[in-house]
Amino acid sequence: MTPYQAPLRDLRFCFDELLDYPAHYSTLPLAAEIGRDDVDFIVGEVAKFAQEVIAPLYVSGDSEGAHCEDGRVTSPRGFAEAYRRYVEAGWPRLGNPPEHGGQAAPYSLKLAVSEFMQAANGAWCMYALLNDGGIKTLMSYAQPAQIEAFVPKLVSGEWMSTMCLTEPQCGSDLNLVRCRAEPAADGKYRITGTKIFISSGEQDFSENIVHLVLARLPDAPPGTRGISLFVIPKRKLRDDGSAGDANAIRCLSIEHKMGLKASATCVMAFDGAEGWLVGEPHRGLKAMFVYINKSRLGTAQQGQAHAEAAYQASLAYARERRAGRAPSGPVSRDKEADALLVHPDIRRMLLTQRAIAEGGRALVLYCAQWVDRADTDDRKVREQAERRLALLTPIAKGAVSEWGSEAADLGVQILGGHGYMKEWGLEQRVRDVRITRIYEGTTGIQGMDLLGRKVLGPQRETLQEFTGEILDFCARHASDNGLRPLVRKLADATNRWRTMTDRIAARHSSDPDLVPAIAVDYLMFAGYVSVAWLWARSAQVANAKLATKSPEREFYLAKLQTAQFYFDRILPRIAVCEAAVEAGSSSLMAMSDDGFAAGR
Amino acid sequence: MTPYQAPLRDLRFCFDELLDYPAHYSTLPLAAEIGRDDVDFIVGEVAKFAQEVIAPLYVSGDSEGAHCEDGRVTSPRGFAEAYRRYVEAGWPRLGNPPEHGGQAAPYSLKLAVSEFMQAANGAWCMYALLNDGGIKTLMSYAQPAQIEAFVPKLVSGEWMSTMCLTEPQCGSDLNLVRCRAEPAADGKYRITGTKIFISSGEQDFSENIVHLVLARLPDAPPGTRGISLFVIPKRKLRDDGSAGDANAIRCLSIEHKMGLKASATCVMAFDGAEGWLVGEPHRGLKAMFVYINKSRLGTAQQGQAHAEAAYQASLAYARERRAGRAPSGPVSRDKEADALLVHPDIRRMLLTQRAIAEGGRALVLYCAQWVDRADTDDRKVREQAERRLALLTPIAKGAVSEWGSEAADLGVQILGGHGYMKEWGLEQRVRDVRITRIYEGTTGIQGMDLLGRKVLGPQRETLQEFTGEILDFCARHASDNGLRPLVRKLADATNRWRTMTDRIAARHSSDPDLVPAIAVDYLMFAGYVSVAWLWARSAQVANAKLATKSPEREFYLAKLQTAQFYFDRILPRIAVCEAAVEAGSSSLMAMSDDGFAAGR
Repeated sequence: MTPYQAPLRDLRFCFDELLDYPAHYSTLPLAAEIGRDDVDFIVGEVAKFAQEVIAPLYVSGDSEGAHCEDGRVTSPRGFAEAYRRYVEAGWPRLGNPPEHGGQAAPYSLKLAVSEFMQAANGAWCMYALLNDGGIKTLMSYAQPAQIEAFVPKLVSGEWMSTMCLTEPQCGSDLNLVRCRAEPAADGKYRITGTKIFISSGEQDFSENIVHLVLARLPDAPPGTRGISLFVIPKRKLRDDGSAGDANAIRCLSIEHKMGLKASATCVMAFDGAEGWLVGEPHRGLKAMFVYINKSRLGTAQQGQAHAEAAYQASLAYARERRAGRAPSGPVSRDKEADALLVHPDIRRMLLTQRAIAEGGRALVLYCAQWVDRADTDDRKVREQAERRLALLTPIAKGAVSEWGSEAADLGVQILGGHGYMKEWGLEQRVRDVRITRIYEGTTGIQGMDLLGRKVLGPQRETLQEFTGEILDFCARHASDNGLRPLVRKLADATNRWRTMTDRIAARHSSDPDLVPAIAVDYLMFAGYVSVAWLWARSAQVANAKLATKSPEREFYLAKLQTAQFYFDRILPRIAVCEAAVEAGSSSLMAMSDDGFAAGR
Repeated sequence: MTPYQAPLRDLRFCFDELLDYPAHYSTLPLAAEIGRDDVDFIVGEVAKFAQEVIAPLYVSGDSEGAHCEDGRVTSPRGFAEAYRRYVEAGWPRLGNPPEHGGQAAPYSLKLAVSEFMQAANGAWCMYALLNDGGIKTLMSYAQPAQIEAFVPKLVSGEWMSTMCLTEPQCGSDLNLVRCRAEPAADGKYRITGTKIFISSGEQDFSENIVHLVLARLPDAPPGTRGISLFVIPKRKLRDDGSAGDANAIRCLSIEHKMGLKASATCVMAFDGAEGWLVGEPHRGLKAMFVYINKSRLGTAQQGQAHAEAAYQASLAYARERRAGRAPSGPVSRDKEADALLVHPDIRRMLLTQRAIAEGGRALVLYCAQWVDRADTDDRKVREQAERRLALLTPIAKGAVSEWGSEAADLGVQILGGHGYMKEWGLEQRVRDVRITRIYEGTTGIQGMDLLGRKVLGPQRETLQEFTGEILDFCARHASDNGLRPLVRKLADATNRWRTMTDRIAARHSSDPDLVPAIAVDYLMFAGYVSVAWLWARSAQVANAKLATKSPEREFYLAKLQTAQFYFDRILPRIAVCEAAVEAGSSSLMAMSDDGFAAGR
């Protein structure tokens, strides 16, 4: 297997050339102290860590898997040690509150370098990169004493945290949460219930684990308005704040999964476990979801990171493996066959992976700038950013996770029979990336969030604003040499997006099934156009550089060619999404329950 | 996990109502003795065997996997025993030469019931269903003494056979075969070389294994015209024909695969193994490929069978699992949530699976009728059938295997987080079905076969004939009540197929990259239209039955509704294929080798 290489040059392209991060950072108080050298240092060091420390554990982690015996979880060889090095290097501190030991950094920088770790070893990240959500939630809602007790240890990475939402009877529908919390005389609570799908609910990395758990108080109203948030440590705190006696929490088992086998996905039993209420009673969902845009964007990035890694591995194989001859005649006449890379169909698959990896990266890092803005104190900036993220986050999460699966799947196809074998690591990519379309809300949930809650709700104007920016770009570059065909297609697609939205808006109130019937197609349409815009912008940058006779001609040419490929072969998929919208809900809703079973 | 149910009613629909198998069989000498009762008996018994004997081993087979130690292969618990029962019941004899112990039956009947076994346990089939290819090849090319030695034991199932094509350096490109065969004084040959990806190359089912092996004679010209076929038994034959001493063949290891883990995929070393030449020297590829249409159609069926099984499992979950409320208001007011099945997006995924499972079945069984005709002695009938299969086989193999993967993948999505867990069996479907897009020729290979070798080669007229039949159907039913919208779309799509083909024919000679650049899209286009035709025909049958107030109203209504869904939501995908053809090859071919690596 070819070693994973952090795509430093393409990250630099997104940062400096496409998205002008230096200008962006100059507007952020938080980033004022972070200079170009700091960015280079962080990017370079995390790249090294990803390549040298955790990438070598990618395949072995999958083969060994995580194990659970008598409530104890064992992670694969090298995982806990890699985490120790990660902590020693101080990486958990990055982007966390300085007053609790963190190192101030904008979210975007942290996300940018996360790609390397997600690509190198996503299962390891399921242990190591979970603390930020817990820290952010506690910082936003917890009492000062709770913050003092937990946050510094999470910032340093000494302790680790989890999010406990799902229960056996409830996944996407949190109305059904049954876990109970009884107030105790000591001001604490006793929490009882079973949580499933808890990543790193138990592990062998840290001496204590800080669980954030959704449960119902005795007087809770039914539904999601009766769910409260609790913080429950695996080991109770001694007076000096250190980890003491075991709390009444037990890992019953871990799941046997399609992929991410090195990650322990735990069934957790809370049996009168001691914990504290975080935030107001019955407002737990709100508190838990403070981090939702970030965690969904992080999931989009996981899809994108797998696409990048799959591309690299597939390309290496396609350059080395020989079969057949180029259609226009032999290329390697001295060899008995040409490299796979000569074959147009292999190139189609590689370019699809590449368009996804680079386009997905651009979209994720574009969204990350809005997260940075949403993190600032300037109310106007913040509110605009929140609106924009409300629109863009489900698009990025839904579309990029779907594309990530596609890219990994193409990797298997490029390698053919060898792709089906474990030793090449491509089939593992397919298995590992598959969950990104499910967790943090399935693609269906993202689609309904985007269309039902956002576009047909308060963010209709935000969509006009966003598509307006795209159309402005098109207008500005309508007569640019070489860019014209792309810009024309982009403007057309954007206008179709608007028209489609108008049609849905006019029809949906008379058909409550319409929105969920077309939501995934609507989301994918939005994803294809959003990334088309970033590809057109990338092409524009590349064109400009090529005009200046840049020494990196190969790089910019490839950027331009991938953009061209995207417009030729990927963007046309929006026609299918439009057809779905046109067809509406009737052919989905006509069949009776018994009809579904008919014929078997 | 819900037990698999053989879809007897839908098979009956295809057989009796859609494809009029009784009339078809009445034209076949081979089927003259097979009456309706025989068909019912065979279908019923194989269904029982699939449901009761091998389906229960589906999940356990995957968990246990096949193992290889010191050259000996162990299959999962119950596998060999199930094969013993299969042999005792006489199933290996079905459809094989009566003069060697077989039971005459048309290929189509055998294929029809294979679906149940492929759905119930595809990995088991990788052991049990391989003999037919070997029998057919030997019957067509081997000497009478070779036939006498091997065929009866393969027909009874006492011995089993393999096909040994692939080598470490060569997969799709058999030009690169290196395995050597030296003539010996005894008239036999000594074969030396390594073969990989050999399904059941070693196993614990049968006392002897009959390998059909491609190798080069000393005087062989290079390329595929220098490849000969040999039959090489694992154990040499005693004078009485029984299995004697070990031949110089060794299973070096088995592959660790994404799926089909219960099937032993072997690396086989032939080290001067004794064998016989089959057929003429240097003509081995032709002999090996005598069975190619059948094996490709069988692979299409594997994809379809997984789609059916995934549909059943997903539907059972969607009916039982509760989450959220129907968009138009609560359905199960007494429950705290509605069944998943109320949700339009869940129905979209289920209907996609169903449209694939039933449409794929119809396509496979439609092709199977042409195989029956190709097996007859009437030269005119046979030649027309061979032409039709030349066109249809790559379409069925390529498209149905792609759709089978899609259906299994949707199964994981319908189950959400639970779909990612092993216990529900859906993720196993994804892993198991994945190879169908690769073996027996990847989708890319099928596409180039269809477009390059067939449509732009000798089968252009066959395409006109086939599409002509579709257009005739459209003309006949253009004003049928209820069928009109479907027929209009079908005629439009068929005409677009013709136009697209004309355009390609006009362009391809000036661009050798064009055909391979668009071959997969062309193939998928052909698949969507072919199945649209079968869905329109299904709808026509269902309409007619509904008009007669059939007591099976639910079944025919569901058929009609699935057809409607297919035309609304699946067929529009052809627009993307057209766009690819329109775009041509330039955006695939522009990038240099170094460009592919740029940015990393």
